[in-house]
Amino acid sequence: MKFSFKLIKEEGMARAGILDFGHTQVETPVFMPVGTNATVKAILPCMLVALGARLILSNTYHLYLRPGIGVIEKLGGLHRFMGWKRGILTDSGGFQLFSLSKLMDIRSEGVNFKSHIDGSQHFFSPEYVVELQSRWGSDIAMVLDVCPPYGSEKGYIKQMLDITLNWAIRSLKVRERFLVRALFGIVQGGVFDDLRREAASVMKDMDFDGFAIGGLSVGEPEEDMYRVVPLVSDILPKDKPRYAMGIGRPENIVELIDRGVDMFDCVMPTRNARNGQLFTKFGTVNIKRKEFEIDERPVEEGCRCYTCRNFSRGYLRHLFKSNELTFYTLSTIHNLYYYINLVKSARIAILNGKFKSFKEEFYAMQKEGSF
Amino acid sequence: MKFSFKLIKEEGMARAGILDFGHTQVETPVFMPVGTNATVKAILPCMLVALGARLILSNTYHLYLRPGIGVIEKLGGLHRFMGWKRGILTDSGGFQLFSLSKLMDIRSEGVNFKSHIDGSQHFFSPEYVVELQSRWGSDIAMVLDVCPPYGSEKGYIKQMLDITLNWAIRSLKVRERFLVRALFGIVQGGVFDDLRREAASVMKDMDFDGFAIGGLSVGEPEEDMYRVVPLVSDILPKDKPRYAMGIGRPENIVELIDRGVDMFDCVMPTRNARNGQLFTKFGTVNIKRKEFEIDERPVEEGCRCYTCRNFSRGYLRHLFKSNELTFYTLSTIHNLYYYINLVKSARIAILNGKFKSFKEEFYAMQKEGSF
Repeated sequence: MKFSFKLIKEEGMARAGILDFGHTQVETPVFMPVGTNATVKAILPCMLVALGARLILSNTYHLYLRPGIGVIEKLGGLHRFMGWKRGILTDSGGFQLFSLSKLMDIRSEGVNFKSHIDGSQHFFSPEYVVELQSRWGSDIAMVLDVCPPYGSEKGYIKQMLDITLNWAIRSLKVRERFLVRALFGIVQGGVFDDLRREAASVMKDMDFDGFAIGGLSVGEPEEDMYRVVPLVSDILPKDKPRYAMGIGRPENIVELIDRGVDMFDCVMPTRNARNGQLFTKFGTVNIKRKEFEIDERPVEEGCRCYTCRNFSRGYLRHLFKSNELTFYTLSTIHNLYYYINLVKSARIAILNGKFKSFKEEFYAMQKEGSF
Repeated sequence: MKFSFKLIKEEGMARAGILDFGHTQVETPVFMPVGTNATVKAILPCMLVALGARLILSNTYHLYLRPGIGVIEKLGGLHRFMGWKRGILTDSGGFQLFSLSKLMDIRSEGVNFKSHIDGSQHFFSPEYVVELQSRWGSDIAMVLDVCPPYGSEKGYIKQMLDITLNWAIRSLKVRERFLVRALFGIVQGGVFDDLRREAASVMKDMDFDGFAIGGLSVGEPEEDMYRVVPLVSDILPKDKPRYAMGIGRPENIVELIDRGVDMFDCVMPTRNARNGQLFTKFGTVNIKRKEFEIDERPVEEGCRCYTCRNFSRGYLRHLFKSNELTFYTLSTIHNLYYYINLVKSARIAILNGKFKSFKEEFYAMQKEGSF
């Protein structure tokens, strides 16, 4: 079954659509929980299903290093390995090569790097990264890209963009050979409008199934992100999904839906959950605080998640203070529920032509907060 | 609703019965998962329900120190606090006073001790321990006892036994005042047959709802445990449940069912799960081992637990090696399923008059194991 995307409704630049993998349909806008090591931290697949997650993200760089392609292939591919029957998008590893590994050198052929786990040497080419993602059975594979740090000189960003564009062409050339189900290109170009426009213009005519906007949320001011994304959205083809990689805070997601983005992923709901920061429509709750010690209210009043239906703030604080593992599971459930339902509500608003008032209400509620 | 116990069937000394708390019926023999800090480590109440757990254990010493009686009372009692509607037995804290806290002194009035968390000073009397358990709403409260270390001189064990017996009388005197639902006495006496017989003979006529055998599995040889327990069982009244505290390995449980014990608790399934040791009918599996890297079989072939139905040994090993929190949840699910179903199978065997062959089969299977 081929991958498809259907655009259903637009309001301004905001869009509602459906991704179809054959085995799974995914309504967009969608938030993808992050499962770096072939597991979403602290939460089981059955709970992800209960939360309504239909598409999760895993990571080529991490999976390649541990457990390795041989193990995943022998254990039946990534879906079977991790017990997840719905959609899996795998990042190419581009971002991790630059943030985690000891990078040895970037050449036009590919990237030499050292594992952050044991220092061993490895080489990723754009072709090999497509092959890896095909072999472990990703539903959406990402091309290898270069993700330069924020603050790099424009000349360097341009040079890395050229390599990324060249790798995009090479990735497309092998997609038939490796029978990858869906392949997304990645638009780079830093915070430079002309480079982003150039990247989007070159890539829009390439035969990708969707397009990611990479290299954002890497330290730049939010204004840069909010300015650059709509420039790119305007150029990319309307009939293909758009994915803002690694973003972000709830307000970032709302703002980028308003700028034509369909897909999101971020470690923030899961990572912050483990640190005791819980997201609610009224703002964030720091569960560590003494004021919650005998607070019998749920984290977010009216929330229908398992955690809020069954446990008080006082209990969650107790678990956190006692370093209990169940805290991580309960806080992760709540935060993912919040994120998944935030984009679901945005979708319903778009379908009803009410995204503008949805956005106003989102900000009005956040301001009410007093945690 | 008053607590009751009904003995249904006996085979030799082995017994099948039902504990009734009004809100929950518990079939015996029963294994109680341990939820020291008002949570069973790494596993949510909804999963415990799915595993068939009907009675769990929590701990007076730990709950008293953190979060404290005030917090639990203000948050609606222990059941509501931890989101658990079924039965809760709370240990008195006797064992923890001697193993965890800095004990200051044992006097006939009670025990002075220092918190293992912050070194603060506290005092437990037998009356206060009953009051605490009543106030947070335990279904079964345990009396305060003195649990001397293995290897203590007989004279000291005898002296501590006398204090324990005195405290048992004082505990019974306040049970009406504090409206405790069910109160169990604890038989001490170390590995000395005459002291155990004395303790059981004195306690059997006291108006407890059940009797625990304490001070076992504290380092003594298994032969001592297997010799002492039936001496005590023989003396205790037949129509009241018997509980072997903190025991134990699967074979210990099978042997003590065969010696007239109805109730068990132990941290072994949950703690060992977190260290990568998984229990199966064929023996234990150390999931860390390299041989499981590409092993696509479940932990225990034929096991119907969530973990075994969905995940391979290779995947679990990957999670363990990656320090993923989901490992702890999945391994805990399997180990608790194993323990809960071991005693459930023993019960069915007793009901069918086939406990003897059940026990033979248990050992035959364990020997087959090659992990």
